Amino acid sequence: MKENKTVKNESITSRDVDFAQWYTDVCRKAELMDYSSVKGFIDYLPYGYAIWEQIQAFANRKFKEHGAENVYLPCVIPSSLFGKEKEHIEGFAPECLVATIGGNKKLEDPLIIRPTSEILFSDMYKRLVSSYRDLPKIYNQWCSVIRWEKTTRPFLRGSEFLWQEGHCLFETEEEARKNTMDMLEVYDSIGRDLLAIPFVKGKKTEHEKFAGAVATYSIEALMHDGKALQSGTTHYLGTGFAEAFGISYLGRDNKLHAPHQTSWGVSTRLIGAVIMVHGDDNGLVLPPEVAPIQVVIVPIRQQAEGILEKCHEIADKLKSVGIRVKVDETDHTPGWKFAEWEMKGVPLRLELGPRDLAEGKVALSKRYNGEKLVGSIEDVEAEIPALLKVIQEEMYQKALAFLQTKIVDVENLEELKAALEKGGYARMAYCGEPECEDAIKAFTNGGTARCIYKEEAPEGSICPVCGKPSKIVAYFAKAY
Amino acid sequence: MKENKTVKNESITSRDVDFAQWYTDVCRKAELMDYSSVKGFIDYLPYGYAIWEQIQAFANRKFKEHGAENVYLPCVIPSSLFGKEKEHIEGFAPECLVATIGGNKKLEDPLIIRPTSEILFSDMYKRLVSSYRDLPKIYNQWCSVIRWEKTTRPFLRGSEFLWQEGHCLFETEEEARKNTMDMLEVYDSIGRDLLAIPFVKGKKTEHEKFAGAVATYSIEALMHDGKALQSGTTHYLGTGFAEAFGISYLGRDNKLHAPHQTSWGVSTRLIGAVIMVHGDDNGLVLPPEVAPIQVVIVPIRQQAEGILEKCHEIADKLKSVGIRVKVDETDHTPGWKFAEWEMKGVPLRLELGPRDLAEGKVALSKRYNGEKLVGSIEDVEAEIPALLKVIQEEMYQKALAFLQTKIVDVENLEELKAALEKGGYARMAYCGEPECEDAIKAFTNGGTARCIYKEEAPEGSICPVCGKPSKIVAYFAKAY
Repeated sequence: MKENKTVKNESITSRDVDFAQWYTDVCRKAELMDYSSVKGFIDYLPYGYAIWEQIQAFANRKFKEHGAENVYLPCVIPSSLFGKEKEHIEGFAPECLVATIGGNKKLEDPLIIRPTSEILFSDMYKRLVSSYRDLPKIYNQWCSVIRWEKTTRPFLRGSEFLWQEGHCLFETEEEARKNTMDMLEVYDSIGRDLLAIPFVKGKKTEHEKFAGAVATYSIEALMHDGKALQSGTTHYLGTGFAEAFGISYLGRDNKLHAPHQTSWGVSTRLIGAVIMVHGDDNGLVLPPEVAPIQVVIVPIRQQAEGILEKCHEIADKLKSVGIRVKVDETDHTPGWKFAEWEMKGVPLRLELGPRDLAEGKVALSKRYNGEKLVGSIEDVEAEIPALLKVIQEEMYQKALAFLQTKIVDVENLEELKAALEKGGYARMAYCGEPECEDAIKAFTNGGTARCIYKEEAPEGSICPVCGKPSKIVAYFAKAY
Repeated sequence: MKENKTVKNESITSRDVDFAQWYTDVCRKAELMDYSSVKGFIDYLPYGYAIWEQIQAFANRKFKEHGAENVYLPCVIPSSLFGKEKEHIEGFAPECLVATIGGNKKLEDPLIIRPTSEILFSDMYKRLVSSYRDLPKIYNQWCSVIRWEKTTRPFLRGSEFLWQEGHCLFETEEEARKNTMDMLEVYDSIGRDLLAIPFVKGKKTEHEKFAGAVATYSIEALMHDGKALQSGTTHYLGTGFAEAFGISYLGRDNKLHAPHQTSWGVSTRLIGAVIMVHGDDNGLVLPPEVAPIQVVIVPIRQQAEGILEKCHEIADKLKSVGIRVKVDETDHTPGWKFAEWEMKGVPLRLELGPRDLAEGKVALSKRYNGEKLVGSIEDVEAEIPALLKVIQEEMYQKALAFLQTKIVDVENLEELKAALEKGGYARMAYCGEPECEDAIKAFTNGGTARCIYKEEAPEGSICPVCGKPSKIVAYFAKAY
């Protein structure tokens, strides 16, 4: 419910006082989501869902450039089928929601509500693929998935989230590995070009890789509080699923082969990343490319002659060049409107009052740093799109500078622990063994290898945990 | 798997020999869908899903014109919540899929996999709405829903289907009823302007209305076999859900009121309607507006100098004016390609061979009636878009003429039975009581009231079942 107050949103928690509470406040007050009555689930409200639709549109364009086609597979997986790939089932079983009753009758083969769809894609591909002529298959699905979670947080961890999952088959390992890396690059571009988020990216360690994958790669964003957020993963699955499901194709050599498989996904977690990378004590801050509303026009003394007309004229001009714009002509005060649209993170505010109108000018304000500019009414169609591009780039550079100050190199567990307590990434050489990562996590109160920085270690380096020779250098961080 | 044959698809069943088998053949051979290993569920393959994406894009534009915003709510509904609206739960209980285990533990409150979301929207609105200032809420959701079905048929009836569901709240009954009718008009436009399908539309009888609705309206398409297909519904729900869920708002009169609710939905059934209204013995026939590929270019003697280059030049020209076009440069013969793209229902085929090239001409073939035309290479950007508009209109007029020949007026049960056996709609006056509709259904072997034609009956007419005065005239038909 909105009330007619001069100032609103006065009650938001400061980001540096209580980051978790600040995050929840922004999610709620920017009207991105609401807690559902279904425990562990959220309602995606129009403004939050609109951000997801921007991400979908951008990703769909990029996927298409790589030959991907969209499909839709069932939202349930029979238990009998789910057990076919052993590592996979072991990885997911504890998080499953299982249906046991259908049409008032007990199901003989209970149905698992889709936690991910490697199984169903593999099962379908077995029917669709029999010759090298049927390859490659580069299919993608937009859907929701269920992971039964005990502790949940909006967009970051929940019992249901929205995502896309690509599942592909190729003739050769080389093509499949290329697809895995191409998609990692697409995801990097979602950060760089859409969300103004720089990622650390690379291969996951054995300990952290996906259940059933040969190799997993991830993009990792750094939040304002110094914690990492895994924001997307791509997997080279080898031929394991194909063999488990009996997928084979008659090759150019007239012999049967198992195709090489990949999968890749990003989710509504990306919305969480945007909030925590760019947000501030006045609320959400959206980069122009992903903002559902890029420019909000606030009339000053909107009853004055010609003000509203001119605001709409400017809005129409901006719409004609593809800008997403809104005129706020509600009966709230300008101050209320400023706070409202700051909370919602609209990248650029345009004010127009009688004096501006007389002078042929508009007052502009950048949301991300509060900078004030003066524009010309005459030139809005040219000036504003250019200014939005500048804001996008500035926000990326600001986030990149923050990230760069938060990467340090360490050589032992004490240094690692101290670095992770300060927040950010610490790069350390070690043996790469899962057991040592467990020890590191315990010692640092939660530090994990986010991804591999270098697949070799400096000459003579030894693992600070087990004392054996180091084999890799990884980015460690505390993570969401 | 595709093989390199001169002719393909020779095995499709004739539409007039076995319509059900013909339908299945088209669904499979046009590669719209595949049967999943999950019993009762289907895989939406890229070509079928692309049709759905066209419908989504069209509908989203229309919904937005009516102020709708997209949201996403949980895919599960707690049993305890589901029971709140009594008629609603009774209507849906027999079709529910129920999850009873989460994270390896028995759930205290089992979760029903969403069959429709009136419940969750009502529950959410209770939290979001408290003042007339919060109204109207015009929210829409794109998702899949589960209805546990015993007999299933691709796109028409399945345990899972894709749809959109709009759920709205208004201050007044008048606004809510207007929204109900506005959305019926949007759905009619999806038929008329996108799918080239004329609908019979109107209010549902008491017997046929939605569980929990005050009034239900539907669009009903007529299939080639003379059976009706309910293709979309809009509901005025009154204040029943609001009262059951305790939604109220402080009105302009400073008193508490229950808001008036609507819901409306169309589903992937629309794909089934397109297949069965327009398809023929060569396969699918798509109207240009909804076709994922509007023009297929088939090179004749594609090895000849300049042919492929010119084909791509034409494709680029067409793309530049927004036409969805594909050049088939596979190594199949032209005959194979013709059959392939006929099966997939591409509305217009463009052929270019050496002689055409020399003469500056292209050969054109309309899919829906096989008509051949000659076009000019020079003018493709102007000619082809205009021709596609003509095809769209011709297909609509053809379907409309078919529909009009299939509506008859009858006055008694024998006439009704005979008319329904021939296929199509029979309009009959009767009392409008559910018991008489049950008797009509039994007597006619399945004829049901599809929607009301007139909410009054001719002077002196009596119900042919019970002998009481007739109150309405309804469209009766056998239906999918």
